[in-house]
Amino acid sequence: RINGQRLISRLERLGEIGALPGGGCCRLALTEEDRQGRELVISWMYELGLQVSSDAMGNVFGLRPGTEDSPPVMTGSHIDTVRTGGIYDGNLGVLGGLEVIETLNEAGIVTRRPLCVAFFTNEEGARFAPDMMGSLVYVGGMSLDDALATKGIDGQRVGDCLEQIGARGSEPVGNPDVHAYVELHIEQGPVLEESSITIGAVEKVQGISWQEFCFTGTSNHAGTTPMRLRHDAGYAAMATGSFVRELANRIGGDQVGTVGALQMEPNLVNVVANQASLTVDLRNTDNDRLKQAEAELLDFIERLAEREGIEVQHRTLARFDPVPFDTDMIDCVEASAKAFGHSVMRMPSGAGHDAQMLARVCPTAMIFVPSVDGISHNINEYTAPEDLEAGTNVLLRVLLDLAG
Amino acid sequence: RINGQRLISRLERLGEIGALPGGGCCRLALTEEDRQGRELVISWMYELGLQVSSDAMGNVFGLRPGTEDSPPVMTGSHIDTVRTGGIYDGNLGVLGGLEVIETLNEAGIVTRRPLCVAFFTNEEGARFAPDMMGSLVYVGGMSLDDALATKGIDGQRVGDCLEQIGARGSEPVGNPDVHAYVELHIEQGPVLEESSITIGAVEKVQGISWQEFCFTGTSNHAGTTPMRLRHDAGYAAMATGSFVRELANRIGGDQVGTVGALQMEPNLVNVVANQASLTVDLRNTDNDRLKQAEAELLDFIERLAEREGIEVQHRTLARFDPVPFDTDMIDCVEASAKAFGHSVMRMPSGAGHDAQMLARVCPTAMIFVPSVDGISHNINEYTAPEDLEAGTNVLLRVLLDLAG
Ligand SMILES: NC(=O)NCCC(=O)O
Ligand SMILES: NC(=O)NCCC(=O)O
Repeated sequence: RINGQRLISRLERLGEIGALPGGGCCRLALTEEDRQGRELVISWMYELGLQVSSDAMGNVFGLRPGTEDSPPVMTGSHIDTVRTGGIYDGNLGVLGGLEVIETLNEAGIVTRRPLCVAFFTNEEGARFAPDMMGSLVYVGGMSLDDALATKGIDGQRVGDCLEQIGARGSEPVGNPDVHAYVELHIEQGPVLEESSITIGAVEKVQGISWQEFCFTGTSNHAGTTPMRLRHDAGYAAMATGSFVRELANRIGGDQVGTVGALQMEPNLVNVVANQASLTVDLRNTDNDRLKQAEAELLDFIERLAEREGIEVQHRTLARFDPVPFDTDMIDCVEASAKAFGHSVMRMPSGAGHDAQMLARVCPTAMIFVPSVDGISHNINEYTAPEDLEAGTNVLLRVLLDLAG
Repeated sequence: RINGQRLISRLERLGEIGALPGGGCCRLALTEEDRQGRELVISWMYELGLQVSSDAMGNVFGLRPGTEDSPPVMTGSHIDTVRTGGIYDGNLGVLGGLEVIETLNEAGIVTRRPLCVAFFTNEEGARFAPDMMGSLVYVGGMSLDDALATKGIDGQRVGDCLEQIGARGSEPVGNPDVHAYVELHIEQGPVLEESSITIGAVEKVQGISWQEFCFTGTSNHAGTTPMRLRHDAGYAAMATGSFVRELANRIGGDQVGTVGALQMEPNLVNVVANQASLTVDLRNTDNDRLKQAEAELLDFIERLAEREGIEVQHRTLARFDPVPFDTDMIDCVEASAKAFGHSVMRMPSGAGHDAQMLARVCPTAMIFVPSVDGISHNINEYTAPEDLEAGTNVLLRVLLDLAG
């Protein structure tokens, strides 16, 4: 059994890097805070005797050799956060992995297959789109060059930032050879808590569509310009925001739709905006419905731009189909939870995760633990100590099962 | 008759300060650009032999003594601009005034009453609300202390900025003694151009209402948070923007409504916003209808906040009733335009102007000249040279009429 207190100490220690005044933390990908976080986690990897390597995308791997020199069983997640992040999202998967390693070290257990604890670059996608960028490049789903050239919300490039914080490793990316991947994560939603269940055996990740729209209209005087003569880029952006809500409600089921980012120019009280850009995040477990939502959105934007006499530029920032996980792996998570006497349910994931990328190259599953009030990407994100411990014990058992 | 070429040279020279790449200029109130603009205009005042003074609010006055030591006839406007401003808005009124002075100097004419060319601090209100702040304080409609304590969109205070750019003058504010005020300005709207008329004799300024709303919701994960559990501050702001358009169209007539500024926090693609603030600019020539629009807006916001489970903070940034101008003064503008053979029409002003503040203390009117395509607060703002000249000749004649 793992040591829950030790796990929590590490979570809290890592959470100090980029800590926010009211709690939670801000450790956006490839910032100075990310650099400090990486340094700390890598120092722990060395302390635990892991063989540390990193690749050209800044993904970091801590290997614990097995008795066999075969492809490792991998676990992990990410340590970057959003701007209003908690200390569990991502970090739990990485530090839970290290806690499993320390537990095995103490017990003197050597597995047949090697074990590997990884953390992947820029999972959140909050600074650089798409999300899960590091693991996507790792599995060959995006070229390294495209990833390095990606510009963030602050105009900086991934490649330059990787260099600046010294996170660009020497290992090439691509052709990963992994026996299986399992990732422990907080649910980040309300389902487990509402069902009073401790462990989620994640069956699939819903489809994710991130779209960016930039409207160009005509700046003009807010007092003198009659409504009928306006080409108001700001209005177009706000009308899109209202439409996204209406669209998600109309499609219903588990469809969600969010406009989380919006900027207007010149952004002054008495000037009709000439520029406005916004992002739309659409998700559904059913890809056909997700495609329907995307089509309706594009249709709305086209008619809106025509009616308002404004130009629109459109870019897809991320698009991932729903990803089903491996049934044997899901069974294994479920069985392990039951072996500890924990309540368990099968469920989809609403958030994107590195696991969905690893699923392209090896049998994959995820273990969820409850999020209090279903809150995440919020400084009040919280998971109870007993749930953190329960999830990490399930991780231990699944890893032992897979690594033999 | 005034010298149109000399007027245009001064407009272009002043327009170089804060010039934007594609044309137009950005000379926000009390910035370094404003300082340079002030320096240039004051140097011209001295060259023309004016007695220059400035008050504690940074309003600047260039006096040309008359044969009588009586209250002056005043003209002027402002030299601050919005972020996407043109070179005519405000500047024409000030430099047109100087052109009149130079014409009188050349002709060796001394008026009975003194003449005064003024420019007032922060007319635009783009950086610090309310608009027309300098003239409002000048006429005693706002206390100097309140004005100096006002925080701008960048968090800086009027008082500190006045000090920083050395614009705080030695004259006290309040108790102005002005015989009459007339202001030359570009229309900034489409009416004169659509009617093929050269001169607008402005009868009144419409009512202006600026409201700011700050919504506080709960940041949460865009993928995991069901629509029904959201407290989305960004959605509330965008829904308000859609409502303002609908409201203005529904009230109809000359009602306008604009959301020109909006910020969201943390402003990330996959985070439901926990904070969003926006400004609403509502205007109508009819104060009852303006009050109706304000009441409907507040009612909408209240129901929205309740339904979405979010907090709302509300602040009025500016509120001015419609202002009628002096009928004799309007007649005088009309007669002067006709004397030059210019077509002229009576019309309301859609924009706010310093004249509406001066109207509290003395007989006041305004002279409008056409804006090509009705465009202003835009780098493509333009008024034809012959219209600039026509308006300035009308100004000359009105001033001579008033000053005797
Ligand atoms: N786990 C997590 O919050 N991932 C961020 C990517 C996303 O789902 O938007
Ligand atoms: N003339 C002018 O653009 N004034 C700015 C104040 C306003 O009308 O918003």
